[in-house]
Amino acid sequence: ADIEAGKKKAAVCAACHGQDGISMIPNYPNLKGQKAAYTEKQLFAFKDKKRNDPIMAAQAAALSDDDIKNLAAYYESLGKK
Amino acid sequence: ADIEAGKKKAAVCAACHGQDGISMIPNYPNLKGQKAAYTEKQLFAFKDKKRNDPIMAAQAAALSDDDIKNLAAYYESLGKK
Repeated sequence: ADIEAGKKKAAVCAACHGQDGISMIPNYPNLKGQKAAYTEKQLFAFKDKKRNDPIMAAQAAALSDDDIKNLAAYYESLGKK
Repeated sequence: ADIEAGKKKAAVCAACHGQDGISMIPNYPNLKGQKAAYTEKQLFAFKDKKRNDPIMAAQAAALSDDDIKNLAAYYESLGKK
């Protein structure tokens, strides 16, 4: 996965999940350092409507499979800093 | 919420989510420092079948509302250490 591409793509996610992956909104999860395999699985689930959330459905619909893998790798990498 | 009670209850969660809330299994999310409101929302969703996962359905079914609140507070508190 391309972490740099993930970082660029994450600009839109930062609105809710925070610049550094720590969200300011109690209901929205922190993503910093989250397991890439887990994040990928959830983004695909939102995209395929296996997991339902109106906001995330819209976000995931706009992501390609590569975007999803890059984003997941990017957020996991934030935990290693 | 009662963080100490949450810690005791978390013994069963640690099997997959790790003693310190960092999971060793790529598909299972880290819980350390996760937003309590988010964790609570997901545990209730698993309990009410709004979110589906066979393993978590069984776990959530065994939890009372207080257990869920204590667990969520406990895992958030791990992030503050």
